[in-house]
Amino acid sequence: MTVRGAPAIGVAGAYGMAIAAASLADDSACDVDTFLVKMKEAKVYLDSSRPTAVNLEWATNRIVELATVFASRGCSVAQLQGIVLEEAHALAAEDLRINHSLGDFGAALLPSDKPVNVLHHCNTGSLATVGHGTALGVVYSAHEQKKQVHVWVDETRPRLQGAKLTCFELKQAGVPFHLIPDNAAGHLMYEDKVDVVLFGADRVAANGDVANKIGTMKVAVCAHEFGVPVYACVPTPTVDLGIPSGRDIVIELRDSTEVTHVGKEQITVDDCPVYNPAFDVTPAKYLTGIITEEGICYPPFSVSLKAAKERAEARVKANWEETIAKYAEKLGVAQ
Amino acid sequence: MTVRGAPAIGVAGAYGMAIAAASLADDSACDVDTFLVKMKEAKVYLDSSRPTAVNLEWATNRIVELATVFASRGCSVAQLQGIVLEEAHALAAEDLRINHSLGDFGAALLPSDKPVNVLHHCNTGSLATVGHGTALGVVYSAHEQKKQVHVWVDETRPRLQGAKLTCFELKQAGVPFHLIPDNAAGHLMYEDKVDVVLFGADRVAANGDVANKIGTMKVAVCAHEFGVPVYACVPTPTVDLGIPSGRDIVIELRDSTEVTHVGKEQITVDDCPVYNPAFDVTPAKYLTGIITEEGICYPPFSVSLKAAKERAEARVKANWEETIAKYAEKLGVAQ
Repeated sequence: MTVRGAPAIGVAGAYGMAIAAASLADDSACDVDTFLVKMKEAKVYLDSSRPTAVNLEWATNRIVELATVFASRGCSVAQLQGIVLEEAHALAAEDLRINHSLGDFGAALLPSDKPVNVLHHCNTGSLATVGHGTALGVVYSAHEQKKQVHVWVDETRPRLQGAKLTCFELKQAGVPFHLIPDNAAGHLMYEDKVDVVLFGADRVAANGDVANKIGTMKVAVCAHEFGVPVYACVPTPTVDLGIPSGRDIVIELRDSTEVTHVGKEQITVDDCPVYNPAFDVTPAKYLTGIITEEGICYPPFSVSLKAAKERAEARVKANWEETIAKYAEKLGVAQ
Repeated sequence: MTVRGAPAIGVAGAYGMAIAAASLADDSACDVDTFLVKMKEAKVYLDSSRPTAVNLEWATNRIVELATVFASRGCSVAQLQGIVLEEAHALAAEDLRINHSLGDFGAALLPSDKPVNVLHHCNTGSLATVGHGTALGVVYSAHEQKKQVHVWVDETRPRLQGAKLTCFELKQAGVPFHLIPDNAAGHLMYEDKVDVVLFGADRVAANGDVANKIGTMKVAVCAHEFGVPVYACVPTPTVDLGIPSGRDIVIELRDSTEVTHVGKEQITVDDCPVYNPAFDVTPAKYLTGIITEEGICYPPFSVSLKAAKERAEARVKANWEETIAKYAEKLGVAQ
C-alpha cells in the first residue's frame, strides 16, 4: 500500500524490475542466464505484493520478455540492465499518454454549458498514477477545458484516500469540491445533487464487473437506483479478459487497525473484532459505461471491452515491434 | 447531540420539563398561571433543540397538558411540580415497556434453528433509549431467547456511533459482533453474509419513508437490491402521520469538523469545504417492514402504520385517563 492506484503500481513494478536488474551489477559472477533467472524471481516477488493489480503483472511481464529477447540476441548483462531501466521510463510516459486519452474521452461526456457535479470514490488522480489520473483525469481534462466541474469527494473509509489525497489534489488543481462522509453519497443523489459518478478500478473482468476500493459498489448501486450515470475509468491494461466475472476476483482482507484507529485515535472498544475487505466488486449491470483510453465501452461489456482491448493490443503490438527495433538499433544487434 | 436516540430524547424532554418546573420552586411570586406560561416556554425551547425528533414534541406536549389539566382543577405549583416529575418517571418506564415489546416482535422474525447475521447502522441500544433499545433491542431480545445472533456493526461515519457505542454495548451484552467500515456493508451482502438489516429512525412519515442517521438509505437500497430484508425498528411515537412523505422532512446540516477531524486527528487539507447532512431519508419502497411495539407493519405502510398508530393511541388514551385518575386520587382533586 506504499504505492497505490492500479496504473502507478504497474509502472512501479517496472521500476522495481529495473532496481532488481541494477542490484545485480556488482555481481561479477552474474551471467546472462543467471540475470534472466533473477529477473523472473523478481517478477514473482513483485507480483505477489498486490494480487488484484493486473497492471503489475502486465508490466513485469513486459520487462521479462524484453530482457529475454535481447539475451537471446547476445546482449550483455549491462546492456540488459540499460534497456530494462529505459523501458520503465517508456512505460511511465505511455501511462501518462493513456491517462490523457482516457481523460479526454470522459470529459467529452460532461456538459460544457452548465455546472456538473461529479461524485468520486477513493483516489484516482496524479497520486495514483504516473500523472493526470483516471477518474480524476476526466475531472482534470474537463477543468482544463473550462467546464464547470465540481466534485463531491467520498472520504473513502477506512484509509481515507478521498479525504487525504483527492482533496489535496483538487485543492492544488483549483477544482471546486466538497468532502463528504461516504454515508452522505446516497442522500446527495436523493437531493438530485449528483450528475455523474466516476471511479477507477483495480481489475475489470471480461463481463464488465469491476473490482475497486471498498464502498464503490454501494455508490454504484445507489446511483443506478436514482438514475445517475456511473462510469468506471479504466486503462485497458486493467481489463483482464481471462477473468470471466467479478465472482472470480479474490478480495484482499486487510488489518483491523485500519478500522479501529484513525491516526493515533482509537475509535472503538479494545480488541474489537473487525471485518475489513480492501475491495468490492461492482456488478456490470450497475455501470453506464467504462471509460478507457481506447474510447467508452457500453453494454454488452463482453463485446465492447473485448473490442477496446483488441485496439489497445494492436497498439501495444505495434509499439512492441517499434520498441524491439529501437533497442536493437541502439545496441547494434540483429532485429 | 449530548442526548441521542429518538426515544431517549423524548424522555429527556420530559425530564427537561421536570427540571424547568423545579427551577420555579424558589420563586415565591410564581402563581399557577405563570407556571403554565413558563412550562409552555420550556416546551418551545426544548422542542427547538432537535427539529427531527418527533418523540420530543410528543413528550413535552404530554407534560404541558397534564399540568394544564391539574392547574384547572386548583392544584398548587408545588403539586404540579410533583406530578410533572412523576410523569417523567412514568414515561421512562413506558419507554422501556415499548422497547421490550418492539424487541420481542422483531426477534420473532429471526430463526431459532440457525445462526443469523444482522447488519446494524448507528446506535439504537440502551445508550439511545431509556433501556433495551429499538433495533438493538431486537438483537438483545433474540440473544436473550438464545438465538444465534451475530451483528455486523456499521461504524457510522462521521460521528462513529456504531464504533463507539454499539460495539461497547454488544461487548457488554456478550453478543458476537464485528465492526465494519460503512463501505463494507454492500460487499457483505454481495458475499451473502447478511440475513437482515436493522436500524432505528428519527422520524417516520405517513407513507413509511424513514428519516434516520446518514448512510441508512445507502444500506437499505443495497439490501433491497441484494434481496436482504430491511426493517426499521420504530416505536409508534416516532411515526408522524402529519408528515405525508420523507420529502417533507427537514434534514439538519452539521458542522464540518465532524468530518475533517476524528478526535484530535485532522484527516484532510486545511479549510476543507464539507457537506455534512446528519440524516437521510430511506424511501418506503426499500423497507420490508417497520417493527413497532404494536407489531410489524408491512406495505402498504399508509394503512399499516395508521392502524399501529391507532392501536397505540387507544392505549395512550386509556393510559391518559388512568394517569389523570391516578394523580387526581393522589392529589385529592375532582376527577
